Amino acid sequence: MSKDDDTGAAGSNRDTHYAKLRRAHRDAKRERQGLPPAQPKSKRDLPPRKGSLYATRGPAEIVYLYGLHTVRAALDNPARVIRSLKATRNAMMRLEIAEDAQLPFALEVVSPQEIDRMLGDDAVHQGVLLEAQPLVPRPLSGLGGTELVVVLDQVTDPHNAGAIMRSAVAFGAGALVTTQRHSPQESGVLAKSASGALEMIDHIEVRNLASAIEDIKAQGFFSVGLDSEGPAELEKGFSGGRIAIVLGAEGKGLRQKTRETVDMLARLDMPGAIKSLNVSNAAAIALYAARRHLHGLNNG
Amino acid sequence: MSKDDDTGAAGSNRDTHYAKLRRAHRDAKRERQGLPPAQPKSKRDLPPRKGSLYATRGPAEIVYLYGLHTVRAALDNPARVIRSLKATRNAMMRLEIAEDAQLPFALEVVSPQEIDRMLGDDAVHQGVLLEAQPLVPRPLSGLGGTELVVVLDQVTDPHNAGAIMRSAVAFGAGALVTTQRHSPQESGVLAKSASGALEMIDHIEVRNLASAIEDIKAQGFFSVGLDSEGPAELEKGFSGGRIAIVLGAEGKGLRQKTRETVDMLARLDMPGAIKSLNVSNAAAIALYAARRHLHGLNNG
Repeated sequence: MSKDDDTGAAGSNRDTHYAKLRRAHRDAKRERQGLPPAQPKSKRDLPPRKGSLYATRGPAEIVYLYGLHTVRAALDNPARVIRSLKATRNAMMRLEIAEDAQLPFALEVVSPQEIDRMLGDDAVHQGVLLEAQPLVPRPLSGLGGTELVVVLDQVTDPHNAGAIMRSAVAFGAGALVTTQRHSPQESGVLAKSASGALEMIDHIEVRNLASAIEDIKAQGFFSVGLDSEGPAELEKGFSGGRIAIVLGAEGKGLRQKTRETVDMLARLDMPGAIKSLNVSNAAAIALYAARRHLHGLNNG
Repeated sequence: MSKDDDTGAAGSNRDTHYAKLRRAHRDAKRERQGLPPAQPKSKRDLPPRKGSLYATRGPAEIVYLYGLHTVRAALDNPARVIRSLKATRNAMMRLEIAEDAQLPFALEVVSPQEIDRMLGDDAVHQGVLLEAQPLVPRPLSGLGGTELVVVLDQVTDPHNAGAIMRSAVAFGAGALVTTQRHSPQESGVLAKSASGALEMIDHIEVRNLASAIEDIKAQGFFSVGLDSEGPAELEKGFSGGRIAIVLGAEGKGLRQKTRETVDMLARLDMPGAIKSLNVSNAAAIALYAARRHLHGLNNG
């Protein structure tokens, strides 16, 4: 796929340009009507096909969760509405579910191949597939007791977003804030990368990220945006007892409005020939450094 | 795929067991004959098919590299033997290659769709595909001027290995040491995840990891193995002016022999409900902390 960076032979540039305009117009119209942006048809199809595990946003919302950690965490999450569980005998043993268990959802013993057929060959499902409703996003007012939050400015890759959720939970962050648009939706891929963390962190979706950051600041958080050109070193960029870490997508970085809104732009010093990290790796380091700040351990 | 964790219905356990024994026997025999372990047929096929981008180990070794950063770095690497370059006009402009350029390899102007057809839909190739020979692994004696190296104990996922290479180069590590077996081979997926770093770090393959760690220690490196049960906190685990960071695969961790060989086992303190990170995220934090130690900035 020549995703977002190459439009092929010069002659097709104009077509792509008009296609973008048409899409932007259609999405703006849907937004005025209170509808979510239209998704490519392949992402709306149900049941899932190979490589198409995104939840829809319509009334028939379903998300397919797989992998032992992911499913165990979903079963343990009282907020998760489960429709059915398909599992191999082996996976049921590892999940400690008896075959005659009384469960509030349908349970079906299947072969690994049956799950392969549903998910495709690339999903490491470990013999278990959960059909569930997506979690309901939380309001921004609910940051309550947490002293560490992560804000993503259009990070769309589900592997990265999932790994960020996992690190966020590991380092005790209480919430992940994303925009409603240009964010990865809850999906099997995201959930698997999050390794259970999806069920353990409040996901807050906002319409306008800059307003949300203002709101977060008003709740006493010091907001630090990661930026390779930032004036402060990361460790010196933290202040106070509540920290919000703001990360942009690889390549694009933080949007201008986001850069203007955060309390500080901070950089991660890298002495080597490569000057940028995978975004989930950058997030992990920022969370680690923020946690050290909150514990009074940074010396800059 | 029910990879490595689930053998399906109870009746098939024995078949799988015998299949494993047969495979182990065959691999042991090949090893005695000096041959690499047999790979599933799908990984030996050339030219590449969807999802099958692994280099072979036979005489006709080829690796397919794609993506602008990855290909730019390969073109800039004098050690990289290139066979051909396929690129869209747009990509050639971005790589600053003229259509009539005199190059020591074949150049073909193609449409993005032609590359799609070769690589499948999942590869974000940005209009460029390089056919090259894999890099020749370096000897362990060549650690020369570097003060930081990364050692991987059977980390096989190419996305993770690639992201680790990228972080290693960013934080100025001079070499990546892996075992010959149970390591990701050079591939398009690994190269893309490394974002150019594959061309910028010495990759050293060793037969026996414990012996290699002894050798690294003899070259003046203090070796720290990451282990969730490690007695030392990561920041307190560093010592001296040359550091080797040793990481195991997710789930499995370091092998017993590796644990016994490193100078120190260190843990990464995580206050949250999840106690392990994605291995590339753990590597990024360890590299960051090691770099701070080498710059005299850690205070524990």
